[in-house]
Amino acid sequence: MDIPKQAKKVFGGIIYDVYHWEQEMFDGTFETFEMLRRGPTADVIAWVGDTIIILEQEQPNKPLYPGLPGGRMEPLEEPLEAAKRELLEETGYASEDFTFVGEYNPPGKIDMRDYLFIAKNCRLTDTQHLDAGEKISVTLVTFEAFLQYCRNPRFTAPLELRFEMYEALLDPEKKASLKKKLGG
Amino acid sequence: MDIPKQAKKVFGGIIYDVYHWEQEMFDGTFETFEMLRRGPTADVIAWVGDTIIILEQEQPNKPLYPGLPGGRMEPLEEPLEAAKRELLEETGYASEDFTFVGEYNPPGKIDMRDYLFIAKNCRLTDTQHLDAGEKISVTLVTFEAFLQYCRNPRFTAPLELRFEMYEALLDPEKKASLKKKLGG
Repeated sequence: MDIPKQAKKVFGGIIYDVYHWEQEMFDGTFETFEMLRRGPTADVIAWVGDTIIILEQEQPNKPLYPGLPGGRMEPLEEPLEAAKRELLEETGYASEDFTFVGEYNPPGKIDMRDYLFIAKNCRLTDTQHLDAGEKISVTLVTFEAFLQYCRNPRFTAPLELRFEMYEALLDPEKKASLKKKLGG
Repeated sequence: MDIPKQAKKVFGGIIYDVYHWEQEMFDGTFETFEMLRRGPTADVIAWVGDTIIILEQEQPNKPLYPGLPGGRMEPLEEPLEAAKRELLEETGYASEDFTFVGEYNPPGKIDMRDYLFIAKNCRLTDTQHLDAGEKISVTLVTFEAFLQYCRNPRFTAPLELRFEMYEALLDPEKKASLKKKLGG
């Protein structure tokens, strides 16, 4: 959820910043409210032919988890630049056909904006360039297999996208419209 | 997810505390890692006959959302005490038959422990006692109707419980075992 405009930053962390503001309550009194901001991220639904790239990642304090190519935007970086850079660094794949899907930011006390892109016709153009805190292997899956990832508790994707995937599993019409939305 | 034991608190907020630690990377170098701790909460699956209590809540900066009775534990309060107190304050209902279901704490960079309880045979014993920041109405729903709440993007329940509800909608066996687990 978006942080209210009048909120002031009271702490700047590595990933999260803490914001406070004076919130009027239902009875006219005021209380200090708190929200967090996590720097914005960009994620990519990357198509190689009719399959989607899923990453199996490992980080130093985190066991193996599946996810989409993507990550935190650098300062001053545009969402599209971040999407292209992360896809290339994490997988070695590139595309000349990127489309913006939408902005995800789940309800709750954290402003955690994610910009989702489709990349079509991805081609392997380079080797991976990983940070010291990343181990990543690339898997190509069909759209049907992609949908099943929402059922894995460790799958890291924007929360609303995970719910859209569950809805697609429950409702054939929603499956068709999600497939279209994600470029399939 | 649990915060590593060696992590140190670097900021104490109203809801969230920020923790840092030095994490060894895959190549032997070290980086400062960050996680958040949100104070623990307790939630209740409260049965009135064969129906479950759902709250429709409103808060000063948050439009109407459905959820379970429950909330943040007071300092030094035990999970069961918090569950009983929140149920009574938010709904006026009480029960003499509480059972602990389990501890929920989703993967990710926030330690946000939630203790889930079942309360059977709830009876209305008091009026609501709400804070200045709460407006709550009580609805009684069947287990089938309860499961559908996971599909509402604004439903606030432990994330893993929401996924268990989705799984129950996809798989009759999981529905039967979730119903049993939740006291139905």
